[in-house]
Amino acid sequence: MNYPGGIVPKGAKEGNEFARKSKKGAKIAAGNRGMEFESDINKSNEYYKEKGLCLVTKRPTPINVVKVDYTRGAIITQAYFETQSTTDYNGVYGGRYLDFEAKSTVSKTSLSLSNIKPQQIDHLERVLEQKGIAFFLIHFSAHDEAYFVPAGEIIAFYKEKPRASLPYSWMKEHGKLIKQGYRLRYDYLPLVDFFFPAK
Amino acid sequence: MNYPGGIVPKGAKEGNEFARKSKKGAKIAAGNRGMEFESDINKSNEYYKEKGLCLVTKRPTPINVVKVDYTRGAIITQAYFETQSTTDYNGVYGGRYLDFEAKSTVSKTSLSLSNIKPQQIDHLERVLEQKGIAFFLIHFSAHDEAYFVPAGEIIAFYKEKPRASLPYSWMKEHGKLIKQGYRLRYDYLPLVDFFFPAK
Repeated sequence: MNYPGGIVPKGAKEGNEFARKSKKGAKIAAGNRGMEFESDINKSNEYYKEKGLCLVTKRPTPINVVKVDYTRGAIITQAYFETQSTTDYNGVYGGRYLDFEAKSTVSKTSLSLSNIKPQQIDHLERVLEQKGIAFFLIHFSAHDEAYFVPAGEIIAFYKEKPRASLPYSWMKEHGKLIKQGYRLRYDYLPLVDFFFPAK
Repeated sequence: MNYPGGIVPKGAKEGNEFARKSKKGAKIAAGNRGMEFESDINKSNEYYKEKGLCLVTKRPTPINVVKVDYTRGAIITQAYFETQSTTDYNGVYGGRYLDFEAKSTVSKTSLSLSNIKPQQIDHLERVLEQKGIAFFLIHFSAHDEAYFVPAGEIIAFYKEKPRASLPYSWMKEHGKLIKQGYRLRYDYLPLVDFFFPAK
């Protein structure tokens, strides 16, 4: 789910030319798994929105536009991906602010900390300072499982850096397995209530 | 501040080639005024963030990436602007969710409703349903004034559509003038307290 480096950027639509034609087969496969999780989270958010349970939106990938061709109707002909300075998702749940990052790994045993950017840690710390709800959704595709982990736990681990990656076993201790379903792919909202109960 | 149609898209950086070279002189001038207001709001948000008063981020302009050239280091060579399905800004203030749209007009007398997209009205209604704080910041460049108007007021006007534009005089009745300063360009947070007092 990261870029640059060959993984399909989040701005790219599944199935478009860009997604199909890149040469980096293996990385694309990993990227696609990441995109699948992202797509499942988007579907879950759509479900919550329809039911009026919460309203969560995904921030678009920031892109620096340099050249636009107006002769053919505003086609961007030169642009660059920029690094997301925050997380991918935020929204409102009963008046409360929530903010989270979704990460997917193909590893059976851990999620590398290199997947989490320093500016995301910084952003989530500020969210917590503002009394917002902050967490991670971490997907282990090999196990077909996703965990809800409060941001505070990951920030503490990140700062201590006892290891270069978050072990799968650690997720089970500090997070909770998210219930999966058909239309509501990942039902993470009950875990917001569990970890961040309303006063 | 809108696109397509010749106005400088929000994804474009001020002073880059794209901003400079478009032929639509008059519209660019209006667009630049819009970008100036946007830049002032960004600076105000930066100030609030530094002081730990609230945390507001701007959503990037959504762009559909079609082609990327990896031979020169991930240059996007074909992409299209997409319509923002929400508002430009959201964030957290003492645990509470806030969401707003910033609009600028060169007119002395009104803001055309065509500046406000149906999907933005829909989004802000959902924010209010979720008990979030929702509002507009409306800038009249000819008066060097900006008004804080609760989203509920504008949604009601939009649905009734007594006129095709929101009169300047109406803003004074239903909104409040935002205090301007040097580093804190538009101090809108006291008006959040005024219109949406914490319980």
